[in-house]
Amino acid sequence: MAAEVHRRPVVTDMEPVEAHVARVLAAVRPVAPAMLGLAAAEGAVLAADATAATPLPSFDNSSMDGYAVHAADVAAASGEGPVTLPVADQIPAGDTRTVTVAAGTCVRIMTGALLPGGADAVVPVEWTDGGRAQARFFQPVHKDNAIRHRGEDVAVGDVLLPGGTTLGPAQIALLAASGHGSVLARAAPRVAVIATGNELTEPGAPLVPGQIWESNAYMLAAAVRQAGGSATRHRAGDDPGTVLALLTELSAVADLLITSGGVSMGGEHDVVKAALSGSGAADMTFCKVAMQPGMPQGFGVIGPGRTPLLALPGNPVSAFVSFVLFGCPALDALRGRAPGPRPVRRAELAGPLRSPRGRRSYLRGVLAPDGATVAPLTGQGSHQLGALARANALIVVAEQVVSMAAGETADVISLP
Amino acid sequence: MAAEVHRRPVVTDMEPVEAHVARVLAAVRPVAPAMLGLAAAEGAVLAADATAATPLPSFDNSSMDGYAVHAADVAAASGEGPVTLPVADQIPAGDTRTVTVAAGTCVRIMTGALLPGGADAVVPVEWTDGGRAQARFFQPVHKDNAIRHRGEDVAVGDVLLPGGTTLGPAQIALLAASGHGSVLARAAPRVAVIATGNELTEPGAPLVPGQIWESNAYMLAAAVRQAGGSATRHRAGDDPGTVLALLTELSAVADLLITSGGVSMGGEHDVVKAALSGSGAADMTFCKVAMQPGMPQGFGVIGPGRTPLLALPGNPVSAFVSFVLFGCPALDALRGRAPGPRPVRRAELAGPLRSPRGRRSYLRGVLAPDGATVAPLTGQGSHQLGALARANALIVVAEQVVSMAAGETADVISLP
Repeated sequence: MAAEVHRRPVVTDMEPVEAHVARVLAAVRPVAPAMLGLAAAEGAVLAADATAATPLPSFDNSSMDGYAVHAADVAAASGEGPVTLPVADQIPAGDTRTVTVAAGTCVRIMTGALLPGGADAVVPVEWTDGGRAQARFFQPVHKDNAIRHRGEDVAVGDVLLPGGTTLGPAQIALLAASGHGSVLARAAPRVAVIATGNELTEPGAPLVPGQIWESNAYMLAAAVRQAGGSATRHRAGDDPGTVLALLTELSAVADLLITSGGVSMGGEHDVVKAALSGSGAADMTFCKVAMQPGMPQGFGVIGPGRTPLLALPGNPVSAFVSFVLFGCPALDALRGRAPGPRPVRRAELAGPLRSPRGRRSYLRGVLAPDGATVAPLTGQGSHQLGALARANALIVVAEQVVSMAAGETADVISLP
Repeated sequence: MAAEVHRRPVVTDMEPVEAHVARVLAAVRPVAPAMLGLAAAEGAVLAADATAATPLPSFDNSSMDGYAVHAADVAAASGEGPVTLPVADQIPAGDTRTVTVAAGTCVRIMTGALLPGGADAVVPVEWTDGGRAQARFFQPVHKDNAIRHRGEDVAVGDVLLPGGTTLGPAQIALLAASGHGSVLARAAPRVAVIATGNELTEPGAPLVPGQIWESNAYMLAAAVRQAGGSATRHRAGDDPGTVLALLTELSAVADLLITSGGVSMGGEHDVVKAALSGSGAADMTFCKVAMQPGMPQGFGVIGPGRTPLLALPGNPVSAFVSFVLFGCPALDALRGRAPGPRPVRRAELAGPLRSPRGRRSYLRGVLAPDGATVAPLTGQGSHQLGALARANALIVVAEQVVSMAAGETADVISLP
């Protein structure tokens, strides 16, 4: 059975996912860069090219343990007719003395040590008898053997890392090795996550029927940190004035606000919508996005600094998927990274699925370790966190597709 | 041109990579678990199954905005012959009052709100005129429509998450939604990273020829944090006694020590080897592993607590690759995760490569976004951080292969 597709256009007041992404990205600017020490710069994004102020290596040095020599002195060496030279000195790594090798002598040298003057080659210890007072050489050596020349890897002014690079372990190492004690980079954006609703109680506290334990702000704060932001967690009830006051206050100390809940279409109890609609303090758009889960969405700016505010739906799975689609690009933009679309791969469906007509589905699935197959999970309700907690992927089903069979190939977004 | 392979066995005193991994894993035990609050538990690993103490949902509730009714009361409703019922009350989410719907009436109800007594269905607001004092119903409703029943997602005693689960955003959300304010989990292992060598100077400080800026400890500390550990960074010179004292001191406050440098085969200047060999304070094995880069390796335990100590080579690329191969499994084991081998994928080589006979190579490469091709980078020297900083993958070349051509398929390990 092939995918069941409806070709007839769906008349809808819903916007495509891409339109809401574009709305978000049009309003989000990178946070201000700062000089960050290397430890603080981990995970940050370079705000400008990092260039080399020093050549690398910064001095001629030996790439092996051995003997620094005049190559001509061992030109006649062989296994049958070894050449013997007196060992005039030894240079460990970190030795900063100025040493010179006189013709007819050699100097014992360690990997990474400063090449002594006069030497034009290093003979690996394996080609010798390893002697201390004098050494026997069993083969000749080419000029420049085992020598790393000053500047051969990096010249002054070379771009070490282009602006926009995310600083992981290897990038931090390259900066350190080049002498950068700090770099101009954008630190983790400050994100305030606000869960709304009178029904929310703190996990660990007892529950009265009608109440639920707050999970969205915990989830979104963790997701923000995973996406390279720093996060604070807040809760607000159902009073629009209080919610507006809290959001306005937070807008002064955050680079992005993310609310969950209070944006649906039904009731007067949609507190985020009520708080922000028609308020002079905020400039918001609330809309329906043609997706499942997560149809009701909001985005805008709030406060004197026009801080971006992402208003996500309150069902936990809806909030999660919405964060993946809209929050992650916003974080990328704040960090100064190119906010490309989430990478999509293709995998074979291990089971059938259904999807509502006219909305793009993001179904929870388990992608096999080899990436070849993806199994849709049971429990696809937008409140069902159990399946989300077992998922490692979202299966993307196009708007016009209402069902797919096992064995068909689907688009998949891997979850971190 | 196909891969050039040597079938004749290589006589060697080197150990296979797997043997050194096994040596590491045989000595590493998970860190002690602790009750961690949810924010602290982000990234931690569950030490035992997390089970449900409360059913989910914990009370019957509405899955939509609408009206709670006796289904029988609207059985005759149609577009032509709507049924009108008085609206006796309204129940927003979070309302904990005990409300009952009398026959012949209805109660307005919001998504997630406690279902009132007597009601056996919820009519979505879209099927009504949305009235406040009285509501007109345009179609009948099945019993249980739009009702989420107590316990239908999770029953008391159900395993929410099995022990060994790494707690990301969705798992944290599931725990929170189930009322867990804290969980028994293993926090980030404490890892002390120690760079050795008199040649090391702090990045940002001026350099004298013979010295280099310290980069390995910065790199390894960042890699430890990326792999789920917490890290402290230390430097030591070339005096074995001082190094031994520092390592012994750190062994009391760390779950793992990682040194870089001082383990090669050549000189008496191999300070880690000198400090730990024959010392009663440590029980170490130094060996050659059949890999490139990173042949000289060490592993053992140190101090009264027999803290594991991973002694990595000092060339930065060697240290990085060694961390990927030996440090990451050690971190997994400390965290209580199954320390499986790094996932290996297959990709087509975009260019040729060479590899030393008898050693497994881990060459730096760039894996295309679609994962189909991988391009070996230039600058494969084990001191050349530039290529490592541009790489997103290691190309794994088997011991007996000495060259591969563009177009051949290679094993690839993605870097985080």
